[in-house]
Amino acid sequence: MQILDIHSHFFPKQWEDLQARFGGRDWPSLKHHGDGTAMVMKGQQKFRPIYDACWDPDVRLREMDQQGLCGQILSATPLLFGYERPVAQGEYIAKLFNDAAMAICQRGRGRLFAMAQVPLQDIDAACAEASRAKSIGHVGVQIGSHINGRGMDDAGVFTFLQHCADEDIPVFVHPWDMMGADRTGDYMMGWTVGMPAETQLSIVSLILSGAFDRLSRKLKIAFAHGGGSFIFLLGRLENAWHHRDIARGRSECPPSHYLDRFSLDSAVFDPGALRLLVDKMGDQRVMFGTDYPFPLGEQKMGGLIRETEGLSEQSRERLYAGNAKAFFGIE
Amino acid sequence: MQILDIHSHFFPKQWEDLQARFGGRDWPSLKHHGDGTAMVMKGQQKFRPIYDACWDPDVRLREMDQQGLCGQILSATPLLFGYERPVAQGEYIAKLFNDAAMAICQRGRGRLFAMAQVPLQDIDAACAEASRAKSIGHVGVQIGSHINGRGMDDAGVFTFLQHCADEDIPVFVHPWDMMGADRTGDYMMGWTVGMPAETQLSIVSLILSGAFDRLSRKLKIAFAHGGGSFIFLLGRLENAWHHRDIARGRSECPPSHYLDRFSLDSAVFDPGALRLLVDKMGDQRVMFGTDYPFPLGEQKMGGLIRETEGLSEQSRERLYAGNAKAFFGIE
Repeated sequence: MQILDIHSHFFPKQWEDLQARFGGRDWPSLKHHGDGTAMVMKGQQKFRPIYDACWDPDVRLREMDQQGLCGQILSATPLLFGYERPVAQGEYIAKLFNDAAMAICQRGRGRLFAMAQVPLQDIDAACAEASRAKSIGHVGVQIGSHINGRGMDDAGVFTFLQHCADEDIPVFVHPWDMMGADRTGDYMMGWTVGMPAETQLSIVSLILSGAFDRLSRKLKIAFAHGGGSFIFLLGRLENAWHHRDIARGRSECPPSHYLDRFSLDSAVFDPGALRLLVDKMGDQRVMFGTDYPFPLGEQKMGGLIRETEGLSEQSRERLYAGNAKAFFGIE
Repeated sequence: MQILDIHSHFFPKQWEDLQARFGGRDWPSLKHHGDGTAMVMKGQQKFRPIYDACWDPDVRLREMDQQGLCGQILSATPLLFGYERPVAQGEYIAKLFNDAAMAICQRGRGRLFAMAQVPLQDIDAACAEASRAKSIGHVGVQIGSHINGRGMDDAGVFTFLQHCADEDIPVFVHPWDMMGADRTGDYMMGWTVGMPAETQLSIVSLILSGAFDRLSRKLKIAFAHGGGSFIFLLGRLENAWHHRDIARGRSECPPSHYLDRFSLDSAVFDPGALRLLVDKMGDQRVMFGTDYPFPLGEQKMGGLIRETEGLSEQSRERLYAGNAKAFFGIE
């Protein structure tokens, strides 16, 4: 059975000193340890330990072979987004990292694909880079769950999504700069509490803004980490929509009406959770994703779908690769 | 089959003008419309429309009869907590509302019970009021999910919980003053996104603080709204715990180890979600709760457990009343 992972991350092995070029602070960089491991730095601050699978396609392909993956789609980690920078800087780093992603893919023997990042702080620039990225081979774009606090119900986001629909560019929404950060500083709760809430927030605000009532049905949009807590909390959202007018926003229909307008990845790390996801979304709206090669990713890649009971062979095929091939237009 | 609702709210029909007594602002009050409805006010601001089931035990009992409930446990809405006030004011309003709750229960023909609120901004005062409340008939205490930003991993909260364990006072944790409020201002997302994240945060921070490794096993503690998004995200939390040292906090064991140390109510508004809750927690750790009589509560009280497939008769009995009777010591 083919297994295609839509949610994996890369770092270029090296890139220019962005602080030297632009000034400012907190620019991302890599500190290599010389043994195949490195520390992602945010300015002078340690951000995350990584290893050479991030930048070396040979290592990545070897691990994919070991775990039975036929392909992987790479995307930037949100640390690289730079939405908070001036537009020209955002454009520059989007091109820098998007070109670097394609360079890795070109060494991927046809098994590596990439989603681009875009300078979402300027919608025109974001649309332009999304189109340029498509033209050089990217299979989609990844965007953060908000633009410096402006949510998925922002008019600019709407314009960007409509552009992607018109140009047949699939969109993947990844949480970043998580809500409630002042309360989740300990124990990585920004990742275990903030991230899934952030992703749920992005779906809920998109739905309740009425965006799906106005966006082209051609739009292909998916959300990371199984949509965060969205599916489990759909009942609560639905109940609120029906019984309190101010909970409806500008959506014409109850939230459950829009489940056929987006997809989710499978990175939920629990068979019961994945089963609920597939039960609610249908087996054509969930795509295998791992968050590889990060420590909080699915370590035994593909294991979760294998271990989840009650999925038919056809459902497994769809989750593992079929849905993603259709979504991203990969043969 | 007996049906006992552990999560319902009350307001006294009237109370003294707290602004006149204490000064300050944003005190809660009720503006009655004269037709059995009222607006909860926060200072001069409209907070929530309610109706006479909140304050009139006869109305409440009639609706309980209509929907087949044998009993209900009342608690304050978090607007009444007053944790942000000076201690003496917090003590005063805790007594005020706790005595008012008992006055409603005394007209409840043995079918209404109450949980007390406590001035958690002062742990000694909170312990004293919890004990006083128990002595006048309260069956437990309800606390907010944090104390003005200090989480459930706070040393004072630990002291309070140990006091409740020692005195056999059940504790119910309710979300309030939700994380990420700057991002959830529209469409009631504070309730549909913020609240369940807030409740998950309270459980995660309690677990990862190592509190359960040190707290008496006698402690009875339960969380509102099915624990928010906790159960669906347990796989993510567990995966992080195993693969990243800084995600472990001070807990000796992985998070799933502690599922037998707390309970959750059933207010999740979706049969699939409830089923996952019972699958993970076991049928002795989930208790029927509605959030009655608020618009975001379970409108057809008891319907969710009835409609959830795959629960045995014994499980239903436990969820509807058996677990709650044991937890709260109600005959």
